[in-house]
Amino acid sequence: MGPIGVFDSGMGGLTVLRALLRRLPDEDFIYFGDTARVPYGTKGARTVRAFARQDAAFLHAQGVKMIVVACNTASAFALDELQQEFPVPVLGVIEPGIETALARTRGGPIGVIGTSGTIRSGKYQEGLARVVGAARVRARECPLFVPLAEEGLTEHPITEMAVAEYLLPLREARVDTLILGCTHYPLLKRAISRFMEPETALVDSAEALAGAAARTLAERGLVRPAVAPPVAAGEAAPARPQLEFWLSDVPWKFAEAGARFLGRPIESVRQVNLDEVEQAGRLVREQRRGA
Amino acid sequence: MGPIGVFDSGMGGLTVLRALLRRLPDEDFIYFGDTARVPYGTKGARTVRAFARQDAAFLHAQGVKMIVVACNTASAFALDELQQEFPVPVLGVIEPGIETALARTRGGPIGVIGTSGTIRSGKYQEGLARVVGAARVRARECPLFVPLAEEGLTEHPITEMAVAEYLLPLREARVDTLILGCTHYPLLKRAISRFMEPETALVDSAEALAGAAARTLAERGLVRPAVAPPVAAGEAAPARPQLEFWLSDVPWKFAEAGARFLGRPIESVRQVNLDEVEQAGRLVREQRRGA
Repeated sequence: MGPIGVFDSGMGGLTVLRALLRRLPDEDFIYFGDTARVPYGTKGARTVRAFARQDAAFLHAQGVKMIVVACNTASAFALDELQQEFPVPVLGVIEPGIETALARTRGGPIGVIGTSGTIRSGKYQEGLARVVGAARVRARECPLFVPLAEEGLTEHPITEMAVAEYLLPLREARVDTLILGCTHYPLLKRAISRFMEPETALVDSAEALAGAAARTLAERGLVRPAVAPPVAAGEAAPARPQLEFWLSDVPWKFAEAGARFLGRPIESVRQVNLDEVEQAGRLVREQRRGA
Repeated sequence: MGPIGVFDSGMGGLTVLRALLRRLPDEDFIYFGDTARVPYGTKGARTVRAFARQDAAFLHAQGVKMIVVACNTASAFALDELQQEFPVPVLGVIEPGIETALARTRGGPIGVIGTSGTIRSGKYQEGLARVVGAARVRARECPLFVPLAEEGLTEHPITEMAVAEYLLPLREARVDTLILGCTHYPLLKRAISRFMEPETALVDSAEALAGAAARTLAERGLVRPAVAPPVAAGEAAPARPQLEFWLSDVPWKFAEAGARFLGRPIESVRQVNLDEVEQAGRLVREQRRGA
């Protein structure tokens, strides 16, 4: 009955935490953002897998009852391995995003956008193609979207231009559903939706993931009981859900960016030394070799 | 008489290596790019210092005779410390950039652009202000320039727009000299120079650093003798200068990006496990504590 652990390459995963908090208001959460090594989306599969294992191990060492991989790139490259390595449920954002897109498409092509790593992994494309056939799937990497969202240029002519540059082939293909396959992209939702045809449904992995997390908790009997009000006057108020933020670096624009992604200010954050995160990862790897 | 070690947060430092190769064609070089943890420019001082120490220690363990900190952000936060920690000369890019700008200014304001870390460290501004006074110094952080250069959008309307957005205050201040205080920015030189007044001198830290490296080698008697042609027919050809590339990650767009920054294709690259880099850093830290 511990907290739910959520990790991401950096602060983008706060959009996922935001959806989880809305959906599961009685749960405790620990968020870990690997801000010292962000981004993951441009980096190779082997590197992303090593980082993701360390991030998950750090959360697991805090006694979490479930691990949410908020980062699409880490979900693409490391989810299977993490599910084998950890004894708690490990959820990624890709499968829920695919399911939502399949539920919303009206027979037209389905588009997916993401980082270079996520798109080159082919995970979204394979999952979609298994159901609708490869001919109905369109994928695009949009590498500038992450820095644009991080810089807060959500409504800026530069962003309009980048959106047009990346999304024109998807608009021309008349996709009826578009998966925002990166935690940063919901911040650009308005600019994306202005550029696409009005009938294109935008699928936000964060919302889809929160639904999947609620189902998993229920199935495994891991739901934290709702906090009851004090029974009698004078009785201590019950503890409110706890929210802890850990980062491997406190970046220059942390306060602004954090509030932008989470939708409210982050009151306090703790910095974890990268050595500790790596050490947690090494222990898991060794235990696995020993087993 | 070992090779010269050059490190950078990633591949931007290849613009520095390119200048070094032109200036010191008889020297051997080892380049290390910390592509697994790139970028440094958005990250905090403590994180950058820890990474820089590890990078330098990795090069030092290969027996280099000099260490060049090609990354402006690492130079800003870690140079003093590295110079104390390593027994070989350690050169950064900031001091040479300042000297060149001071030699080229014609009495007008001097501008400097760089990453958030470099600009917020205040190193360029302090060095310039000591000579010309703070009133003549203008600084701007240009966070989108790194992803634009990495994506190869060197001549693209998005880049034109970002250049105008960041540099307008510097153009309006009529700076007569502008320091490109990030290894990525020389790739955007044409777009920058089109936007600024034609008489503005652009100072490329890479060129300035190569000159400083040549002077340091000469002063310390570390110059590698020029390779002589074979004396007699049948004699083995002398070994040509060696060039080794080490990266902590092989990113998705390595081949294109590498050639763009170095100005020629990179024939072979070796991937070093991040564990080894961290281990090298730990040894230096422990030795220092023990000393």
